[in-house]
Amino acid sequence: MEELPLPPGFDAAKVQQAMRAFVSALGQDKVFLEDEDRIAYHDKFAIDDTHHLPLGAVAPTTVEEVQAAVKIANQYLLPLWPISRGKNLGYGGNAPLLSGSVVLDLSRMKKIEFDPESGVVTLEPGVGFYDLYDYLKQHDLPFWLSTPGNSWGSVIGNALDRGVGYTPYGENTKNICGLEVVLPTGEVVRTGMGAFPKAPTWGVYPFGFGPGWDQMFVQSNFGIVTKANMWLMPEPESLMGMDVEFDKPEDLKAMVDTIGPLRRERVLTQSPSIGNWLRAAAVVTRRNEWTDKPGALSDDVIDAIRKKFNIGWWGVSLRLYGREEINKAAYKVLEKAMNDIKPMLIKPTSWVKGQPKEHSGWTGTPMTFPMQNVNWYGGRGGHIGFSPIIPQDGTKALEQFNRTYSRYKEYGMDYQGSFAFGERHLINVNAMIFDKDDAEKMKRIDPFFRALVKDAEEMGYGEYRTHLDYMDLVAKTYSWGGGALNRLNEKVKDALDPNGILAPGKSGIWPNRLRKERGQ
Amino acid sequence: MEELPLPPGFDAAKVQQAMRAFVSALGQDKVFLEDEDRIAYHDKFAIDDTHHLPLGAVAPTTVEEVQAAVKIANQYLLPLWPISRGKNLGYGGNAPLLSGSVVLDLSRMKKIEFDPESGVVTLEPGVGFYDLYDYLKQHDLPFWLSTPGNSWGSVIGNALDRGVGYTPYGENTKNICGLEVVLPTGEVVRTGMGAFPKAPTWGVYPFGFGPGWDQMFVQSNFGIVTKANMWLMPEPESLMGMDVEFDKPEDLKAMVDTIGPLRRERVLTQSPSIGNWLRAAAVVTRRNEWTDKPGALSDDVIDAIRKKFNIGWWGVSLRLYGREEINKAAYKVLEKAMNDIKPMLIKPTSWVKGQPKEHSGWTGTPMTFPMQNVNWYGGRGGHIGFSPIIPQDGTKALEQFNRTYSRYKEYGMDYQGSFAFGERHLINVNAMIFDKDDAEKMKRIDPFFRALVKDAEEMGYGEYRTHLDYMDLVAKTYSWGGGALNRLNEKVKDALDPNGILAPGKSGIWPNRLRKERGQ
Repeated sequence: MEELPLPPGFDAAKVQQAMRAFVSALGQDKVFLEDEDRIAYHDKFAIDDTHHLPLGAVAPTTVEEVQAAVKIANQYLLPLWPISRGKNLGYGGNAPLLSGSVVLDLSRMKKIEFDPESGVVTLEPGVGFYDLYDYLKQHDLPFWLSTPGNSWGSVIGNALDRGVGYTPYGENTKNICGLEVVLPTGEVVRTGMGAFPKAPTWGVYPFGFGPGWDQMFVQSNFGIVTKANMWLMPEPESLMGMDVEFDKPEDLKAMVDTIGPLRRERVLTQSPSIGNWLRAAAVVTRRNEWTDKPGALSDDVIDAIRKKFNIGWWGVSLRLYGREEINKAAYKVLEKAMNDIKPMLIKPTSWVKGQPKEHSGWTGTPMTFPMQNVNWYGGRGGHIGFSPIIPQDGTKALEQFNRTYSRYKEYGMDYQGSFAFGERHLINVNAMIFDKDDAEKMKRIDPFFRALVKDAEEMGYGEYRTHLDYMDLVAKTYSWGGGALNRLNEKVKDALDPNGILAPGKSGIWPNRLRKERGQ
Repeated sequence: MEELPLPPGFDAAKVQQAMRAFVSALGQDKVFLEDEDRIAYHDKFAIDDTHHLPLGAVAPTTVEEVQAAVKIANQYLLPLWPISRGKNLGYGGNAPLLSGSVVLDLSRMKKIEFDPESGVVTLEPGVGFYDLYDYLKQHDLPFWLSTPGNSWGSVIGNALDRGVGYTPYGENTKNICGLEVVLPTGEVVRTGMGAFPKAPTWGVYPFGFGPGWDQMFVQSNFGIVTKANMWLMPEPESLMGMDVEFDKPEDLKAMVDTIGPLRRERVLTQSPSIGNWLRAAAVVTRRNEWTDKPGALSDDVIDAIRKKFNIGWWGVSLRLYGREEINKAAYKVLEKAMNDIKPMLIKPTSWVKGQPKEHSGWTGTPMTFPMQNVNWYGGRGGHIGFSPIIPQDGTKALEQFNRTYSRYKEYGMDYQGSFAFGERHLINVNAMIFDKDDAEKMKRIDPFFRALVKDAEEMGYGEYRTHLDYMDLVAKTYSWGGGALNRLNEKVKDALDPNGILAPGKSGIWPNRLRKERGQ
């Protein structure tokens, strides 16, 4: 056995005691403490493989078993790190923040209940997008998912980390309508109308009576979500839209300033994402087919790749969902708006109910091909993302691009960036693709990431989500009032988790007992 | 001086000390302790005038003054009851739940900041719908409000009690995007991206990094909101729709089952409200013009009134907002759907930018005429509302109506009811209109209200909002897991408000110190 990564205050003997308690409560087949288990629950895309090492894992299958695991954690002061399916790749995967934590793997909790009248599905955390897609197909239910680019993850897990999809239901966290949660002290609560016994409205009215808790369990360590109601989109009668390519980096300004008002006006209700050429190219080709030069790609190589695949410097897809006649009228608005800013190419697309469906994010089909981009450099590929929220303003978006692109060049990285529309904001997702076998380049990732955080901070732009490595760093940038919000978070953390056992360090929130573990 | 309503643990001398402290911190002109002040801060629609008596009021004008008031409250263990403009009529107006509380009147905090690019307004709690309407007009800003029927209240206050308006931005609480809050211990926090210093995205991205707090300050007593960002609707190019009347009570079923799917499909994005004939008639006529018989109105009187005003048993208004051509296509969908269920009358309506605007809730114009209904019985009129959340299902809505209508008849009350659509739920608002000078009838209101709560509870239907008198009663109906959610609320209450000074009893949440005051 390799050296065990111990949680604070533990020795090997205490680990054995705690694990025996888990085995006794859950059964041997739900407790994982071998070296191979620790490898399985390690971040495959880690920049530094010595961080975030799990002690082991437990995999309960019922709410009662989750409560039993929480009870043991409290008894032994053992940190638990809940994951849904652990596919949070680029943000830490299935690994815990604090080394020595036991991963609470909820992927075996896979129940699905669906009310076809209201379109509300009640999910357990182990249900993946593929599972739910199969379920809808199998039961012939006319509802669509909103899938993220990497769809083998959990539907709940994605919503609980504020992940996004491509349809009008793309801001998945907004589709949550009532949760069941095991608190760090072991009690179970139901939020919203779920606090009403046998409420037939649990999944349809999000607020209930009094304070609304749902978002408090998102990106936090205040409780373990064991059930969530989520709204699904009724299958539309028609899906229309266009894929649009633009030729020059500076076209970003006009794209944002044209699409933004249409989004805020709600002519567009899905959330388009403007992506650069590499987002499109990295899934179909590899770098070594074009050059063997180190450093960021030169403009002539970029031009050659773009020419080969006939793609713009930027591309964006716009989609309309609903009644066919309404979509046709809305399409004309989009078409005029896009033509006004002189795109390189407009490719219209159109579907009506009954026709075979395109298998893409636009139809809510699960997919994994976008993950192909990790093979861009060859070797053991991986990526992390730097994703600040920026204003929905073309000039500011272009400035953000220019600043970031310069940093990519400075650090010798190929730029993969996108600007994804929320209703009134943009998420600027910067993917840093790497080859874990390239030791020299791997050393550059951390300083590069920190430089981007600092650049953004100066503009007032904070990340909406980040990798385990940077949760403390990013939390510290949210420093208004001397860090007033984090103090509030930690006050509530201490009230709800007095023993500090649940996901210590998640989103920069540390329990009193472990506050000295806070990183930089 | 009449006998002072004292807070728990106070005598007249201690009151004088506390008030001197307020005067010293805020100045004499911001502290109110005369008998006439206590009358001013008393619920005008109270069923029982001996409850919810304020000790007095303080009216800070800045965040620092709010903090100073909170500091004094902590020093003296004096309960503060924050109000925005205090127009929460039917739910307690500007009165505190616990007698002896000092009303923290924020109506003098009236700053408005507006970013016309993003359409985000930053408001202080004293800004009323009329104020904001005037501001938009004065600065010629092409944005519309979503006003409630009683629009002289606060924009923030309405959103913080989950009030609703009539446009696609009608669920006002969903328009909140970031708050500034004074906590019960006096610290100021900013939520969402406001936790980022000088964040230009505070008002455009609602979640920030980590747990989302905004809804925790809605209908709660966890903090005093001193600023809120809210999204306004860009002025649409066109507004089209129809007012539709239906002849029979049982038409409710088809109305719900036809409008519901259109709402869930988002052909309709505003929230229509189906109202009975009295909602329309009570603002234009009075009961004594039709009958002097006690008890609920008979069918022949109802028929006569309906005939006179040419209104249905139920009426509903449907509206479309946006581009003209898109609205025209959507109108056809609505028209066909409505014709299919044989209405008594369809009255189309249409407006395009540039034409004079109808002054109504549909254009976001502030109004007060719906309050005329309190004069239905004559005398000193008032009302309270019983408003459970029910499924968006015609059969269940009709059953709920039948059950409730029987109770109205049993208690000798004229029925005023409505069924307001959320995206996937209905709010069944039952207005109980009364004449405070009719002592015999006033005695019936409380048992009537409690009967409705009990009827609804048996169906699993809970209220979304209630009068001060019934907050404990309603909170207790949210009893899943032995009241697990309220235990969670009170655990957080004790962590954030250790001295129990802020709005004790709001939404059934009591601080440890005052938990014995919980009512029935």
